[in-house]
Amino acid sequence: MYGIAILGFGVVGSGVAEVLDKNSDRIARGASRGLELKYIVDVRDFPDSPYRNLLIKDFSVVENDPDVHVVVETIGGVGVAQDFTRRALKAGKSVVSSNKELVAQHGCELLALAKENGVNYLFEASVGGGIPILRPITQCLAANKINEIYGILNGTTNYILTSMIKDGASFDDALRQAQANGYAEADPTSDIDGIDACRKICILADLSFGRHMNPEWVKTVGIRAVTADDVAYAAQSGYKIKLLGRAVSNDDDTVSAYVAPHLVPTENLLAGVEGVMNGIVVRGNAIGDVMFYGAGAGKLPTASAVVADIIDAAKHEHSRKLISWDEGAPDMMRDSALLESRWYVRTEKTQYITEKPQSKAVIDAAFAGLEVLSLFRVLD
Amino acid sequence: MYGIAILGFGVVGSGVAEVLDKNSDRIARGASRGLELKYIVDVRDFPDSPYRNLLIKDFSVVENDPDVHVVVETIGGVGVAQDFTRRALKAGKSVVSSNKELVAQHGCELLALAKENGVNYLFEASVGGGIPILRPITQCLAANKINEIYGILNGTTNYILTSMIKDGASFDDALRQAQANGYAEADPTSDIDGIDACRKICILADLSFGRHMNPEWVKTVGIRAVTADDVAYAAQSGYKIKLLGRAVSNDDDTVSAYVAPHLVPTENLLAGVEGVMNGIVVRGNAIGDVMFYGAGAGKLPTASAVVADIIDAAKHEHSRKLISWDEGAPDMMRDSALLESRWYVRTEKTQYITEKPQSKAVIDAAFAGLEVLSLFRVLD
Repeated sequence: MYGIAILGFGVVGSGVAEVLDKNSDRIARGASRGLELKYIVDVRDFPDSPYRNLLIKDFSVVENDPDVHVVVETIGGVGVAQDFTRRALKAGKSVVSSNKELVAQHGCELLALAKENGVNYLFEASVGGGIPILRPITQCLAANKINEIYGILNGTTNYILTSMIKDGASFDDALRQAQANGYAEADPTSDIDGIDACRKICILADLSFGRHMNPEWVKTVGIRAVTADDVAYAAQSGYKIKLLGRAVSNDDDTVSAYVAPHLVPTENLLAGVEGVMNGIVVRGNAIGDVMFYGAGAGKLPTASAVVADIIDAAKHEHSRKLISWDEGAPDMMRDSALLESRWYVRTEKTQYITEKPQSKAVIDAAFAGLEVLSLFRVLD
Repeated sequence: MYGIAILGFGVVGSGVAEVLDKNSDRIARGASRGLELKYIVDVRDFPDSPYRNLLIKDFSVVENDPDVHVVVETIGGVGVAQDFTRRALKAGKSVVSSNKELVAQHGCELLALAKENGVNYLFEASVGGGIPILRPITQCLAANKINEIYGILNGTTNYILTSMIKDGASFDDALRQAQANGYAEADPTSDIDGIDACRKICILADLSFGRHMNPEWVKTVGIRAVTADDVAYAAQSGYKIKLLGRAVSNDDDTVSAYVAPHLVPTENLLAGVEGVMNGIVVRGNAIGDVMFYGAGAGKLPTASAVVADIIDAAKHEHSRKLISWDEGAPDMMRDSALLESRWYVRTEKTQYITEKPQSKAVIDAAFAGLEVLSLFRVLD
């Protein structure tokens, strides 16, 4: 029996328990062995949960139980989650995580710690929810040099932008509607300011380019500044506004990365990614462009990715998955403002889209002295 | 050193040699060891090829060389390819293949033979060219019961249909244009009659549902009957005509599968899959719908998938990937005509789309006595 402990009994943690039950036959076949959920660690009480007999509050029970082989970290954030992840790895247990904040900040260190202890640290669910994306990058595209990766990485902002496009709603109204429907949190900052998308593009870049990209090095703009006016002009001109995270490997081996709203041509597949769905494009030097699409969040989709990692950890108990990346440094980055593109510009008096690809410096110089109200890249 | 032999120096075979050279550093890192292309087997002479020193005509040299660890079969068809694949597996060499005809017909037997000999038989490139699809199904979606899988699986027919949609061309003109541009073969039968798509939906169903689905059991209709008139009516009504392969797992554990033209709503992502590109949707009971998109054919994209399999074979030299499916029998199938959908109907006098989902029997009865010129399903 391969013993499992879940840390954090929130949306994802409870989804993992549910999927383990629901598809137990298929999962055991995939793992070539029986799996047993032994503990769920949470500080809260769940007296009515069908899993109440598994619920404990003390992580050290998990840490010290030799029959726990994999620890599922769905706590989120950095503090306790980082502490428990380190302790689990040091105790010789593989760790599976959906925690993008922790992976984006400390993935490099935690992967090294996993390697030291001969176990695995897996986090498919940290990017794109259930969408298979990290494993395809590391395995299926292993024959490619990856040149670029970009996409719609945050469901909340895509839901808000989709409402603005479909209903002509203002940003504030669309945000309130998203909150009312449970697609945005009461404090929506990390979504709408692009922080969540930034963490995800960092993880994608880490795996694609092989060096740790610190979220602090990535210029991040969210969707607060997108107006109904911008959306309407984009529609007239054949575009939809989408928040994209993007990372480009430059010829000199530097990386340019940013998160920002873009005008996406309606005929581009990403323009058809609506509501809370995510779409991620990877450009390889052999394969060209591939796109991965699906639910970027949600209980069961995210749990689907977590459980796939559990199966993988079970299959590789005595070997290690070769996921790792090197430490990075700020000088590996090149200012994303130097990346050329066409631009959408809105001033007090006019709106238009520039004709030729240009760097941001050229645009800034051209509009010096004018008040630029919106300045978004066009995805060509 | 991990020795490689390529069988068949055609488009894919030469692409594999090119990708192995071009991305050798990254590939060796992925495989955690050096890889060496030792032989290329082809009956033809290539006196001007940079690989002429590796070219041989006698497969038994490969078969008997203990330093060849993996054999890449890009010959195509069943005869020689099947013979060489069997002999390679029996000689204890893993085999990587892009040959959908062989896998669709004999995959079950060849996987069993690989297992017997403690080696791997891998064929990611047999479906969707370079698109990662088989490995994501078996690994990333391993926590899901897969309920359905469908998509645009053939680039040639999608190129022809895209020309008909964009240029209003007739089928014959669009086919001639595709042949002139190198996207259709002189004898286009296996593409335009849906035979190629049928093989691919069979391989997808084998992996998704766990039993061998013989291509002969799958009702297969190609695109010869699609007229400019059908395309125009579809466009007016908000649809694009696409050739889809589809396999559905029914509640009673039977499978319904077919290949046929469909009217796809323009807002559906598959409607945006144009030209030679492929798009494949997988529906799991935890993840919901995910879509995989990319180049479904072509030299380097297909080689990208082949080389990813070579890397995987090298990493798993002493262990086996757990890919397999059971033998199937015709009684596992349920007549696809029983699957309900809305329908597009064209008779001598009229064209329309039915309102409610109905089985084909109901439609046939309703139109008894009338000459139905086109009858396509609507994808809802």
